[in-house]
Amino acid sequence: MTATIDVAFTLEELAHARLAGVTAVMIDVVRASTTIVTALAHGARAVVPVASPEEAIARIREWPAGRALLGGERGGAPPPGFDCGNSPAEYTPERVRDRTVVFTTTNGTRALLALAGARTVAVGGFVNARALVERLARIPGGILLACAGELGRFCLEDATCAGRLVEALRAARPGARLTDAARAAGHLARHYGDDLGAMLADATWAGLLRAQGRGADLPLCVARDVYDVVPVVGDGGLVAAGRD
Amino acid sequence: MTATIDVAFTLEELAHARLAGVTAVMIDVVRASTTIVTALAHGARAVVPVASPEEAIARIREWPAGRALLGGERGGAPPPGFDCGNSPAEYTPERVRDRTVVFTTTNGTRALLALAGARTVAVGGFVNARALVERLARIPGGILLACAGELGRFCLEDATCAGRLVEALRAARPGARLTDAARAAGHLARHYGDDLGAMLADATWAGLLRAQGRGADLPLCVARDVYDVVPVVGDGGLVAAGRD
Repeated sequence: MTATIDVAFTLEELAHARLAGVTAVMIDVVRASTTIVTALAHGARAVVPVASPEEAIARIREWPAGRALLGGERGGAPPPGFDCGNSPAEYTPERVRDRTVVFTTTNGTRALLALAGARTVAVGGFVNARALVERLARIPGGILLACAGELGRFCLEDATCAGRLVEALRAARPGARLTDAARAAGHLARHYGDDLGAMLADATWAGLLRAQGRGADLPLCVARDVYDVVPVVGDGGLVAAGRD
Repeated sequence: MTATIDVAFTLEELAHARLAGVTAVMIDVVRASTTIVTALAHGARAVVPVASPEEAIARIREWPAGRALLGGERGGAPPPGFDCGNSPAEYTPERVRDRTVVFTTTNGTRALLALAGARTVAVGGFVNARALVERLARIPGGILLACAGELGRFCLEDATCAGRLVEALRAARPGARLTDAARAAGHLARHYGDDLGAMLADATWAGLLRAQGRGADLPLCVARDVYDVVPVVGDGGLVAAGRD
């Protein structure tokens, strides 16, 4: 059977996509994907996605004091009592090495939890696109690129990243069938090409982040192929594939 | 306040879009939009969208015998007892003139009913794009182009049509703000340009329709600007704007 490369632009669309037997990639470029990849690249033992700040605060007691951190955001800002927000710049090697990050964000962790029915769940962004495609190209079966979107709406940076992955994957797996959404994402990625600054200038959510004074995170989120880490969901949360 | 041009790619995304005070356009290119426009262009008095074949059969008794028709589809085929399916070719002047069409389809009429909170609800396709843009350009306030999609998934022909409307509307209303989805749709429309045959060759649902032996409808659905009719929702269902 021909493998399918699919894209879901929103969590709601994801609910209608085929998950069984599929390798799913959660994409929340600004900023959860980028932050998760950065944390693992900087030596975090695992990133544990949870649904809410309350759950994060309850879960962190599972680790000895100092072995885990609370990270994430609501409305772009770290929830009260959290160690880190959702800026990749906060997840320095000094802070995260050998620690577990209990992590919750508005869209990204909801998307990760919604992918529970997939065979494998990974995390992708511009920062690890090459490593992700190399890994996905070796796995048989369908691929679903699941954009977290922004509060149920289409999000330009996630869709553009998904499209970049589609274009690389179709080169790596020439027989694959593309869904309508995968084709549209591919066209979008080719439109912006390497000018991801132009893409960010068009992106509503990136503009809001800039207005919040968090614009310094944006270049970190569109830096291409700076990490070889592919986060995958295992028993203990997201870990760097091949490292455990 | 700057007016916004928005696109929702699926009904589920529509649930997160702003409807209050907005002019909404339902887009289900293959085939409900095209069929509704064709029926009104050929003299139908109104098209009444209903949720199910059962409701259509119940509702048609509101009209004297011979004054109304049952039209629509489930799985692409006319439901049992219906007068017409969902092919625009069936809605000839001889059949529809001065009659009301009680109409139900899998995606299109659901989308129309989901738009009930908008200030005005219209129907758009390639067949009436120019007339629609001329009308929308004269109406102040936001515009939401609502793609019916295919069973909750992104649908290439609806998104491409929405993008064509976005591009024409931003030319007509240069100050308008575009959402991420509107920008992406615009890029998609520019990618295909006037080669809507290439778009249909990429479109999953168009391929399925072809496989059902209904491929002859496809050229009718991508014929550009052949009708001046803009269907708008009134008390008695969809009527041609300006005609009542």
